Amino acid sequence: MTEIPIKILKERLVEISHLTSILNLLEWDQEVNMPRKAGDARAEAFAHLAGIIHSKILALNEGGHLVQLKKLFDSGKISGGNGVIVNETWRTYDREKKLPASFVQELATTISKAQGVWAEARTKNDFAIFLPHLEKIVKLKKQEAELVGYTASPYDALLDAYEPGIDTATFSAILLDLKEFLVPFLKRIKESTVKIKPERVKGRFKLHQQIIFNELVLNQIGFDLEAGRLDASVHPFSSGFHPYDVRLTTRYKENDVLYSLGSTIHEAGHGLYEQGLPVEHFGTPLAETVSLGIHESQSRLWENQIGKSRPFWKFFYPKLQQAFSKPFQNILPAEFYQIINRVQPSLIRTEADEVTYNLHIILRFEIEKDLIEGKIKAKDLPALWRAKMKEYLDIEVPSDTLGVLQDVHWSAGLFGYFPTYSFGNLYAAQFYAKMEKDIPNLDRKIAIGDFTVVIEWLRRHIHLTGKTDTASDLVKKVTGEALDPKYFNQYLEEKYSEIYNL
Amino acid sequence: MTEIPIKILKERLVEISHLTSILNLLEWDQEVNMPRKAGDARAEAFAHLAGIIHSKILALNEGGHLVQLKKLFDSGKISGGNGVIVNETWRTYDREKKLPASFVQELATTISKAQGVWAEARTKNDFAIFLPHLEKIVKLKKQEAELVGYTASPYDALLDAYEPGIDTATFSAILLDLKEFLVPFLKRIKESTVKIKPERVKGRFKLHQQIIFNELVLNQIGFDLEAGRLDASVHPFSSGFHPYDVRLTTRYKENDVLYSLGSTIHEAGHGLYEQGLPVEHFGTPLAETVSLGIHESQSRLWENQIGKSRPFWKFFYPKLQQAFSKPFQNILPAEFYQIINRVQPSLIRTEADEVTYNLHIILRFEIEKDLIEGKIKAKDLPALWRAKMKEYLDIEVPSDTLGVLQDVHWSAGLFGYFPTYSFGNLYAAQFYAKMEKDIPNLDRKIAIGDFTVVIEWLRRHIHLTGKTDTASDLVKKVTGEALDPKYFNQYLEEKYSEIYNL
Repeated sequence: MTEIPIKILKERLVEISHLTSILNLLEWDQEVNMPRKAGDARAEAFAHLAGIIHSKILALNEGGHLVQLKKLFDSGKISGGNGVIVNETWRTYDREKKLPASFVQELATTISKAQGVWAEARTKNDFAIFLPHLEKIVKLKKQEAELVGYTASPYDALLDAYEPGIDTATFSAILLDLKEFLVPFLKRIKESTVKIKPERVKGRFKLHQQIIFNELVLNQIGFDLEAGRLDASVHPFSSGFHPYDVRLTTRYKENDVLYSLGSTIHEAGHGLYEQGLPVEHFGTPLAETVSLGIHESQSRLWENQIGKSRPFWKFFYPKLQQAFSKPFQNILPAEFYQIINRVQPSLIRTEADEVTYNLHIILRFEIEKDLIEGKIKAKDLPALWRAKMKEYLDIEVPSDTLGVLQDVHWSAGLFGYFPTYSFGNLYAAQFYAKMEKDIPNLDRKIAIGDFTVVIEWLRRHIHLTGKTDTASDLVKKVTGEALDPKYFNQYLEEKYSEIYNL
Repeated sequence: MTEIPIKILKERLVEISHLTSILNLLEWDQEVNMPRKAGDARAEAFAHLAGIIHSKILALNEGGHLVQLKKLFDSGKISGGNGVIVNETWRTYDREKKLPASFVQELATTISKAQGVWAEARTKNDFAIFLPHLEKIVKLKKQEAELVGYTASPYDALLDAYEPGIDTATFSAILLDLKEFLVPFLKRIKESTVKIKPERVKGRFKLHQQIIFNELVLNQIGFDLEAGRLDASVHPFSSGFHPYDVRLTTRYKENDVLYSLGSTIHEAGHGLYEQGLPVEHFGTPLAETVSLGIHESQSRLWENQIGKSRPFWKFFYPKLQQAFSKPFQNILPAEFYQIINRVQPSLIRTEADEVTYNLHIILRFEIEKDLIEGKIKAKDLPALWRAKMKEYLDIEVPSDTLGVLQDVHWSAGLFGYFPTYSFGNLYAAQFYAKMEKDIPNLDRKIAIGDFTVVIEWLRRHIHLTGKTDTASDLVKKVTGEALDPKYFNQYLEEKYSEIYNL
C-alpha cells in the first residue's frame, strides 16, 4: 500500500535534486566563468529556478501523500532506507511550507541587495553603509525563526537548517569548553621560544605549474578528476552536483604554492565526500550529506589531520621539491613541517592556523547568537568584534574591512552556519582518532602515498550512509561515543607541544 | 482590455527564456567543462528542465488567453511590438502543442541513444551500426512533419522550425541555381595555373599565445568580453544566454593559428548578433534572432566577407607577424591573402573554403529532403554520398567516417538545418553588398581597425529588430529586394577571378 506513494516520492525527489544541481551549477558558473555584466540576468534566472524548486517541494504533499507517509513512519510501519527518505523529506517539506513565498522572496531580494553593499562596505571600510542591510537581514532571520518555531532559543531554528539535532545550548557548552582550552593553550604557544620562519617557503611559482601540482595531489589522494574538476575562484569552494560531477575551486598566489595547495586539499575533503555518496540513491536523502558540520569534518580531516601531517609530506615533499626546487631544495622536511603548522594569531579567519581558527568561529558564534536572541544590536558589532579579538587572540583590529566585514556569511543571511565549522574540527579529530585505531600502520600507508585505506574507511563509515543518521548519531555509531572535544584538544596538545617544545 | 493578458504573457515569456538560457548553459558546460563521467546525470537533469519548459510553453494558453490574443492580432487589434510578441509566441506554442509529450520523449530518447552510436560508428567507420538508429530518427521526423502539418512537402514542416516562411520549393530552386553556378565555377578554378602553398603558414603556435591573439581580435572587432567569453571545445559553437552573457568556443591546433582564428571570427559573428539583441526586450521575440539562416549570415559575413578580406588583414597582419614572427615574417601580405582564400575541394564540410562549402550543403540538402519525402532510404546514403561528392566536387570518398558519418546533425535529428547554412552565405553576401553601399570608405575603415561602423550598421538593420520580420522580409527591408543569389555569385566571381587569375 505504501509502495506506490514511496516510488512516486522518490521520482519527485530525483527531479528536485536534478533541479537543485542545476541551481548549484549556476552558482558555480557565476564564481568561475560568468562574464562580469551578466550578474543581474543570472540573479533573475536563479530566482526563477529557485521558485520552481520551492513549489515542487511543496507539491511533494499533493493529495496529502507525504503527511500520510510520515504518519506511517511515526507509527513504525515504514523503516530502513525508506524511513530515512520519508522522515528527512518531511523535515525539508515541513520547514519549506512554514515559510510563505512572500517571505522567501523578501529574504532573497534583501540578501541579493545586501551582498553588493557588503562588498562595497568591505572595500571602502565603511560599516555604516552595510548596517541598515544587516539590520534588515537580522530582523528577517528572527522572523524566520518565529515562522519555523523553536523551544528554547530562536537561534535553534536557524541552526536546525545546517546541523539538525544540535541545539544552541549544546553548541554553547561545547564551544565554551573549547574556548577555555584554546585561550591558555595559545598563550603557552606564544610564549614558546621556538621561532619559525614562514617567509622561507615563499618564491615564484608559475600558475600552470601550481595547477599541475594541485592536480597531482588530488589524483594521488583519490579525488576522481574524471568525475570532477579543479578551477580557480576568488573564494575557494566545492560543489557536488552528482557523485560523478563534483567541482572544486582554489585560489592562487604567485609567491606561495602552499596557499593554493591548502585550499585544494580542504576542498578535496568536501569533494571526496560528495564523490563517495551512494550513486544508486542519487536524489534521495540516502545520497545526501549529513550536515554542514559533518561535511566540514571531511575537509578539515584532509586539510589538517592528514594534509599537515609528517607522513603526508614524507610522500609529497620530495615531489614538491622536484617541482619547485627553489625554494624547497634548501628547506629540510623538519623545517617545512614546522612552517606549515606555524601558529600565529591573525585577523582573517580563512587564513588562520589550526589552533586559532576556532577562536575566530567562537567569536562569530557568540555575536550572531546574541544578535538573533536580541541581546545585542547590529550597530554594536564593530566594537564587540574588536573587544573579542583582543580578548581571545590578543590582536588589535585595524579596520572593519579586516574585522567584522571580512566574511560573506551575514550579508548572505547565513546565521547558524559558523558554529558548524568548529564542530567540523571536533568531528574530524574524533573520526581520525578512531581511524588510527581501526587501520593498522595508517601513518606508514600514508607515507607511501596509499590513501585507499583512508578513502575506504571514510566511505564505509561516513559517505555511503548518506543522511541515514544525524550528526550526533553518526559520531556515536562510528566512534562508539558521543562527540567529545577532548580528541581535538589532545590532537592539538600532542602536535603543538612537540612543534613548540611546550 | 488586452493590456493585462499581454503583460502576463511577457512575464511568462521572460521566465521561459531564463529557463531556456539555463538549458543552454547546461549544454555549454557539457561541451566545455563537464567531467567525462557526468554524461548520464547531465542528460537526466537536462530532460527534467526541458520538460518543465515544455509544460510552461503549453501553459501560455491557460484560460485560452493566448488564442484570444492571437485572434486580436489576426483582426488587427494588436500590432507593432506586441503584435510580434503575440504572433511569434503563438507560432511556438502552436508547434509545441501539436507534439504530444510521449512523442517528444521518444524522439529525445532515440536521439540521445543515437548520438553515442553515431560517434562510435564514425570512429569505427561502420555505417551499419548507425543505420537502424538513423532509420528510426527518419521515421520519427516524418511523424513530426505529419503532426505539425504541411501543404506541399513534409520537409516544409521541418524547415519551418529553423527558417520560418521559406518552403522546400524555394530552397530547392535557389540551391539548384547555386549548384549550377558553383560546379562550373569550381572547374575553372581547378584549371587555373595559380599555385598556392598553404603549408607555408604552418608552424608551432603556443596555446596561450593563440588564446591571446584570438582575444585581441575579438576585442578589436567589438565582441564584449565582459559580456561574454571564449573557451575551447571539440566543435566550435556559440551560445547566447542573454545579451550580457554570450559564450564562444573555438578549437586549437598547435601547428596552425589560423585554424582557431577562423572559428573564433565565425563564432564572434554569431556572438555579436546575440550581444546586439535589444536587452530591454529580453525574454520576448523582440529580443530573439530571426532564424538560423540570418544567424549564419552574421557568422559568415564576419568570417568571410570581412575576415578573409584584404582590409581586415591590412590591419591584423602586422599584429599576427608580431605575435608569431615565425612563419609570418617571411610571408608577404599578398601571399598570405591567397593562402587564407585557397580553394581546394575536400572531404570535410567544416573545413571547406567559400567556394566548395555550399556544394557540401547542397549534397546534404538533396539527400535529407529525399529521405523525408520518402524518395530514398537511409541504407542508400553511403552510396549516394559518394556519387554526389564525385559529381559536385570531383572527389573520391575513402570512408564513411570521412563521408556520410562526418556531421552530427542527422544523429541529433536536425533535419532541415543544413540548407540554412547556405542561405546564411547568400544573406551575408547580399547584406554586405548593401553595407558597402551604405558606408562610405568601408574598406578604409576596416583597414585601420575601425569596426564600429560595421557593428552599428548590423545593429540598426538586423540585430535590434529581433524577430520583428521573417528572414525574407528582413532581407527585403534591409537591401530593398528579395533574396538574390547573384550577390553571392558576384562576390565569389570577383574575389576568386582575381586570386586565380581566371
